[in-house]
Amino acid sequence: MKLIIAIVQKEDSNKLQRAFVKNNIRATKLSTTGGFLSQGNTTFMVGTADESVDKVLKVIKGESKAREEYMNPNMVTTGFDMGSQPVKITVGGATCFVLPVEEFKRF
Amino acid sequence: MKLIIAIVQKEDSNKLQRAFVKNNIRATKLSTTGGFLSQGNTTFMVGTADESVDKVLKVIKGESKAREEYMNPNMVTTGFDMGSQPVKITVGGATCFVLPVEEFKRF
Amino acid sequence: MKLIIAIVQKEDSNKLQRAFVKNNIRATKLSTTGGFLSQGNTTFMVGTADESVDKVLKVIKGESKAREEYMNPNMVTTGFDMGSQPVKITVGGATCFVLPVEEFKRF
Ligand code: NI
Ligand code: NI
Ligand code: NI
Repeated sequence: MKLIIAIVQKEDSNKLQRAFVKNNIRATKLSTTGGFLSQGNTTFMVGTADESVDKVLKVIKGESKAREEYMNPNMVTTGFDMGSQPVKITVGGATCFVLPVEEFKRF
Repeated sequence: MKLIIAIVQKEDSNKLQRAFVKNNIRATKLSTTGGFLSQGNTTFMVGTADESVDKVLKVIKGESKAREEYMNPNMVTTGFDMGSQPVKITVGGATCFVLPVEEFKRF
Repeated sequence: MKLIIAIVQKEDSNKLQRAFVKNNIRATKLSTTGGFLSQGNTTFMVGTADESVDKVLKVIKGESKAREEYMNPNMVTTGFDMGSQPVKITVGGATCFVLPVEEFKRF
């Protein structure tokens, strides 16, 4: 048994939660804040059999890995598209800790 | 030293918290949501000596184990008792992870 | 790799968070309540290399260790300073668990 603690960006948390349900993975969601820039993020706890750790990590990676998106810089500051070049920004990203579990009980 | 992470139904969390206090068990409560049906639940973290793990698990089981209750099905949909047969539903339930602690510090 | 879970008093959490940023320590903050007296507290999770555990614990101790402060007892009950002797109270305090991490992934 392992306990996976995964910290993902808030914007990815809803689709990750749907992916957990679709893959029959029981996850508990904690509201968190933090990281260097204090952007909102979400922490999931997933208890899983040793042999399913890779599958769970793959689901997390699939929904929340860091990727580049294009954004129009004027949209950010003015709210209007002034015809400037879009810029690449990095969104998403997941940090996962796999912890050993000595005893697991369901009552 | 162990760290017990216990996820219980929100409806059991207040009486479990009182039972922790009564048994002199220090618990930290996290607000969580989730599981398959996204019902509200609560996560408790309890740091405990190795020899007290069973005692803590027993307190958790005593206050929050899954059990059957009878509910009138009409009460749910209409708010009125229409004289139908009560149905059994399962409430409560706790999921507990006992994690090894390598170092424990109080400052 | 280790995962440090640190529970501190809410009044120390902002300065601890600033100290984490200053020391380049990535921390995730969870909102928690609890302990014996149900005072507000905050839980931080910090993933760290084995050799940096002591440095992180030192930062936590520096910002949130239990210490005595003087308080005027009348200020508490009446809101006015009635000239009575100040009393010592204990504030702060941190509880830290260092957990082993079997696998660490960033996506
Ligand atoms: Ni195992
Ligand atoms: Ni131990
Ligand atoms: Ni390690």
